[in-house]
Amino acid sequence: MMKHEKNMKNSKGMVLSEEEREKREKKKELWEKKKYVCQVKLIDIKTGRNIVVLNEKEAEENDIYNGYRVILKHNGREIIAIVDLSSKMVKQGEIGLFGDIAEELNVGDRGLIQVKHMEKPASLEFIKLKLDGESLNEDQISTIIGELMKNRISEAEQSAFVAAVYMKGLGEDETVALTKSIVNSGEKLELGKGPIADKHCIGGVAGNRTTMVVVPIVAAAGIYIPKTSSRAITSASGTADTMEVLADVDFNTNELREIVKKAKGAMVWGGGTNIASADDKLIKIRHPLSLDPRGMLLASILAKKHAVGAKYVAIDIPIGRGAKILDMPKAEMLGNDFIRIGKRLGMSLESLITDGAEPVGNGIGGALECRDVVQVLQGGGPNDLKSKSTLLAGKILELSGKVPEGKGRETAEMMITNGNAWKKMQEIIELQGGNPKIKEDDLPIGPHRHTIVAEKGGRISHIDNKDINNIARAAGCPRDKGAGVYLHRVKGDRVKPGDPLFDIYAESETKLDFAIKAVDVWKPVELEKFLLGTMR
Amino acid sequence: MMKHEKNMKNSKGMVLSEEEREKREKKKELWEKKKYVCQVKLIDIKTGRNIVVLNEKEAEENDIYNGYRVILKHNGREIIAIVDLSSKMVKQGEIGLFGDIAEELNVGDRGLIQVKHMEKPASLEFIKLKLDGESLNEDQISTIIGELMKNRISEAEQSAFVAAVYMKGLGEDETVALTKSIVNSGEKLELGKGPIADKHCIGGVAGNRTTMVVVPIVAAAGIYIPKTSSRAITSASGTADTMEVLADVDFNTNELREIVKKAKGAMVWGGGTNIASADDKLIKIRHPLSLDPRGMLLASILAKKHAVGAKYVAIDIPIGRGAKILDMPKAEMLGNDFIRIGKRLGMSLESLITDGAEPVGNGIGGALECRDVVQVLQGGGPNDLKSKSTLLAGKILELSGKVPEGKGRETAEMMITNGNAWKKMQEIIELQGGNPKIKEDDLPIGPHRHTIVAEKGGRISHIDNKDINNIARAAGCPRDKGAGVYLHRVKGDRVKPGDPLFDIYAESETKLDFAIKAVDVWKPVELEKFLLGTMR
Repeated sequence: MMKHEKNMKNSKGMVLSEEEREKREKKKELWEKKKYVCQVKLIDIKTGRNIVVLNEKEAEENDIYNGYRVILKHNGREIIAIVDLSSKMVKQGEIGLFGDIAEELNVGDRGLIQVKHMEKPASLEFIKLKLDGESLNEDQISTIIGELMKNRISEAEQSAFVAAVYMKGLGEDETVALTKSIVNSGEKLELGKGPIADKHCIGGVAGNRTTMVVVPIVAAAGIYIPKTSSRAITSASGTADTMEVLADVDFNTNELREIVKKAKGAMVWGGGTNIASADDKLIKIRHPLSLDPRGMLLASILAKKHAVGAKYVAIDIPIGRGAKILDMPKAEMLGNDFIRIGKRLGMSLESLITDGAEPVGNGIGGALECRDVVQVLQGGGPNDLKSKSTLLAGKILELSGKVPEGKGRETAEMMITNGNAWKKMQEIIELQGGNPKIKEDDLPIGPHRHTIVAEKGGRISHIDNKDINNIARAAGCPRDKGAGVYLHRVKGDRVKPGDPLFDIYAESETKLDFAIKAVDVWKPVELEKFLLGTMR
Repeated sequence: MMKHEKNMKNSKGMVLSEEEREKREKKKELWEKKKYVCQVKLIDIKTGRNIVVLNEKEAEENDIYNGYRVILKHNGREIIAIVDLSSKMVKQGEIGLFGDIAEELNVGDRGLIQVKHMEKPASLEFIKLKLDGESLNEDQISTIIGELMKNRISEAEQSAFVAAVYMKGLGEDETVALTKSIVNSGEKLELGKGPIADKHCIGGVAGNRTTMVVVPIVAAAGIYIPKTSSRAITSASGTADTMEVLADVDFNTNELREIVKKAKGAMVWGGGTNIASADDKLIKIRHPLSLDPRGMLLASILAKKHAVGAKYVAIDIPIGRGAKILDMPKAEMLGNDFIRIGKRLGMSLESLITDGAEPVGNGIGGALECRDVVQVLQGGGPNDLKSKSTLLAGKILELSGKVPEGKGRETAEMMITNGNAWKKMQEIIELQGGNPKIKEDDLPIGPHRHTIVAEKGGRISHIDNKDINNIARAAGCPRDKGAGVYLHRVKGDRVKPGDPLFDIYAESETKLDFAIKAVDVWKPVELEKFLLGTMR
């Protein structure tokens, strides 16, 4: 049984015997000699996947099967692709090449490329280890992330990895290793001297645009805050979508660095930079089954902070009905994880558990949210947005040591009162190619409006984030910047029948109608009642 | 928190509240109203995947995102496909359609089809449940298998399901449910009255062609044995590949039924029938990471037996170095699982744990294996193949009650001696379109031969199944029926330097050379030694 015991141990990441190593090396050499040449049959579409279609018979004669990898060579360029076999569509001597790969190899229709058998990538062994419940070390994790970035791991394999992490979890060492691997997968910002801060919100709360208030305050206080944000996936508007109403947000890493060097702060779309780029891939994999393994979530968020060099970090964890995190115990666990992993990455990090059971601000949707933000920065605006933003900004000021403990919020409020925050915002808008003199009335709020009124009287007991998001999306968000919802009421308000609850804005009559129908489905505003539902 | 508690329970398979159900129904109706029409951009390749490429902007306006499902409609035909988004290759008003889907919808390039948003398939919820460690019930499992067969679950989602089953295992009820779902996914044989038997080997042993001896014996004894076999995946030759040397093996379920009604036995390729067709899909999913969760393996094997109505079943579990199962405890566990699940499906099942530490028979590869089989059925041939086959056939005869306990093997041997087995084999060959008068010398053994001799003297301590398979494949197996390896020695034999160990046969000089080089890599025959390997 010795040989098999060796094999098993090999797959558990142990040292290979000389003999075994030699065997593998020779096998590789042997099959690689069997390279063959094919003529390109160009398939004029980009799939974003690294797949080639080979003739079944020819491939099998070269020990190449469905899902295997091959090395493709053309004029000195070389890439690795995953094999799909076909017996009819691709004849012997041909290779089906999708647009993206043809471009990468710089080869056209009917061009000739060399195809070579490739041994399984090491990642597969490590993914299998994780499925078997083992912990992975830094090398193994960075191999997985590296090969993921090179498109060497198929979607099915990626999905098995995420499933394994979801079920077995990631230990602290693994999470730190994953964070570092994600950081190393992309560019770093490298701002040089000076304190660097960042913030993050776990999300799920409609209209929660604190970033656009926090960044100008912190930057005005002289602390770097190079904020990258995402676009909406299921919400009405992401911070990047909303900021885009005021300025461009699509900048590469070098451009971001220049803006931040000048203004201390910036608000750009993360997808435009190459910072922590493995993360975009990981998010795509997690999406189909909405798998959000905690370790991966932590690594994903902290990698973006680490890669910009952030030392002072505030994490907003909203909880409650309609938020992503439902209750305090889960929020506390997550908050402590952030602190622990953050510390290992050299960060002073504060986790803030906030009330996420209703939207923040009055506007939901690009231009409507901008109106709230501009109002707050100019000293007015919705109270909840202002008060949450100054809390977060204040904590960052305290973490950085610029302001003594307990004085953060006060200082943040002062930055608004004395006009510095708005001035800083104008500077950032200008550097990002927007109009710094923009006024509330210039905001492109949709011309079609409909007011939803209360059918009955009573006290408002709940305004649902997801439902509000869904209605705003039905109205055209996030594509239509003028679309969205404007809330007239907050939770706890008493209403009489006929009182306006919220307005829907849209850029076309059709979309407005569609959103009105959506209100019927989602009923986002609930009045106090005893029976919330029955179960059988 | 009530609403969320409801949601969580819904996703745990509990009854939805009236309100919640209504909400979902309305949401579906709402979005389905947003159907739109696209012009087909035909992508002239078949991918075997159910993917369409939509324009990003247009899709998002209909609440359709990457990985979502859409309903496609054309001239009364309707299919569901998984969405890939593209902003450049597919313009607004267009839809990228691969060959397979276009064919299914019967639509050509520039044709018009209707695209409609579809809610997530229920399977995703159930897969998530399994990832969360819950047991699935029969309905949930049959929903997953049903939607899998309809191509409604993406590869990434399928992979997550297999990973979940691999990590969490399947309970007995789940395994039975999975077996039944796989059976229901395809056609059933329905032979009517009369005892029906079947056999299965876990595989991994080179040259192990017992099926081709067992089937004629059992059929000659008057018991139905409608054997479906697979083609080689990583071995030199599957039973279907080897049988193909003597006769056709590609028959549909009706054809198989006719053959069996006449001859009692048949040996066909399982992939040609629609019996237990979900299994082919499950195998494909398990392949990339070689995940073989026990419950899935059991269900996969037993579904094929159950779908042909088999009541008397022998399972061959070879163990030892070079076999799939390494040791006795694992084999016993698996053997008992088979018995337990088999019983729940109404089978009398016997698990036989056999020595799988070296190849069975002398020939490895299509024609060479056929020679062994023909010899054994005619009363000669390699002893190990004969003795293993009569053991298995004898057990089936005993299980069926046709032969008293302890007399099975004797009876099986008699069926060979009295010529009935070979006569039955000839009948089956003829019914399957082959030449029943075939003689040993007619077998198309490759014209190019090379003999590998012992370099040193000693006792042969191991002949490795995998290594022998690899060499046979390098020589052209399983495509080239004449290719393969012929063993001159068995384990335990003493050899002198220069003694022939085995011959390699190939259909071309080039392939022979390649296989000779492969011997250098795999060194399949080992002489006794003390140190088998070192580890650091």
